[in-house]
Amino acid sequence: MQILKLGGSVITHKDEYFSPHTENIKRLAQEISATKKPLIIVHGAGSFGHPVAKKYNISDGLKTSEQLVGFSETHQSMTRLNQIIVDTLLEAGVPAFGISASSMLVTKNRRLVDIDMSIIKGCLKLGLVPVMYGDAVLDTEQGFAILSGDQLIVRLAIDLEAERIIFGSDVDGIYTANPKLDPNAKLIELVSLSHITAEVGGATNTDVTGGMLGKLKEAEEAVEAGAEVVFLNANAENRVKTALLGEKVMGTLLTL
Amino acid sequence: MQILKLGGSVITHKDEYFSPHTENIKRLAQEISATKKPLIIVHGAGSFGHPVAKKYNISDGLKTSEQLVGFSETHQSMTRLNQIIVDTLLEAGVPAFGISASSMLVTKNRRLVDIDMSIIKGCLKLGLVPVMYGDAVLDTEQGFAILSGDQLIVRLAIDLEAERIIFGSDVDGIYTANPKLDPNAKLIELVSLSHITAEVGGATNTDVTGGMLGKLKEAEEAVEAGAEVVFLNANAENRVKTALLGEKVMGTLLTL
Repeated sequence: MQILKLGGSVITHKDEYFSPHTENIKRLAQEISATKKPLIIVHGAGSFGHPVAKKYNISDGLKTSEQLVGFSETHQSMTRLNQIIVDTLLEAGVPAFGISASSMLVTKNRRLVDIDMSIIKGCLKLGLVPVMYGDAVLDTEQGFAILSGDQLIVRLAIDLEAERIIFGSDVDGIYTANPKLDPNAKLIELVSLSHITAEVGGATNTDVTGGMLGKLKEAEEAVEAGAEVVFLNANAENRVKTALLGEKVMGTLLTL
Repeated sequence: MQILKLGGSVITHKDEYFSPHTENIKRLAQEISATKKPLIIVHGAGSFGHPVAKKYNISDGLKTSEQLVGFSETHQSMTRLNQIIVDTLLEAGVPAFGISASSMLVTKNRRLVDIDMSIIKGCLKLGLVPVMYGDAVLDTEQGFAILSGDQLIVRLAIDLEAERIIFGSDVDGIYTANPKLDPNAKLIELVSLSHITAEVGGATNTDVTGGMLGKLKEAEEAVEAGAEVVFLNANAENRVKTALLGEKVMGTLLTL
């Protein structure tokens, strides 16, 4: 089983609120449809979840009852994006099935503890492709929290023994510096976990769930558990498809 | 805590596919907003879920892999309706929060077994109003199944010790015969469980989850567990509000 992350910068227009990148979503649905392999998809929030979560300061937890509406609105905006993605996958013939993290799990101090994976396992067994997302979830310590898609992915990879995680974003992979700001930035084809902090630049769009360094730190556990981790540009045609097929692709491979 | 069922005939136009009854939903959101009491809302499918579920024959379980897309489409159409209802409640100031049964539980031969209620309890504790719905869910024996909102309500009532269940439909309550077909049909103000089958007529719109008799049979367990059960017309103004406030309302009260 593989896990594919579709970053918020790929599936939404980040500079326009609640604006899905329909063209990318349709193309990626076709690429996924062409591979027909056991798969879990986790997508980011982009211009859907982040503005609402920020407005109500959801990630710091419940302080006032007025935030309850904002908590729900954050989840609502994410289910709206999830619905667009699942609908598009279904149209492309992928038996995608939307699953809400907030209906399935609670966090403790913003971190995942035990998760009952039986529904996700059940979906995979039937041949469904679970489509999950970073979500506004209940938290045992702070009332509620934002669960990042990346944290969720790593946990899924470990508990379900994924063979590969593919992180699709709007950059070609991990660079020596931020490629959007520094013309001398070089793509690193192979990152060893022991050299992470020295080599790696941050992502341009700092989001509420952390940039590239955050992703790497989250991914570390999955690599240790035996998953292959690939960072690639999902905006570039056929890279997701190539990676899903297990073939060599332009990007960064993360190793121990 | 009370549980309110909003029937498909109240919140959708049953004769037009995927058509929400916006006016009713808005009015009911206002009625609910005026009561401010611990509450779970469960809504029906109406013209959203039923046509898709029937087209792919979802309730009989998985026979061919082509049904997987239909299974997901059934869930998608229900989340679409759920989203409209939650959005409208949020606009009215009700801290509603959409929860997908399919992300939370599996059935066994179409029946609920053990459910982890911790997320629903957590929502209530924070002051959120969980909004659930009959859903296309995984089933351990037949792959997938349709979980009716009524079966879910009764289980919620028992496990969470609800004080009252209010079934809102498009008729005034339980009749001696079908009031839409028989001019001599009389509203029964009080139904004793021991006389159910003799007195009660069926509902006009037979749906995939059973008519009035089915509702009564499902409700029986909840009454035995100590919940007050009321059947009323949610199309008539202020009846839902009156019932939520615990005041006397036109309808049928179900007793042991």
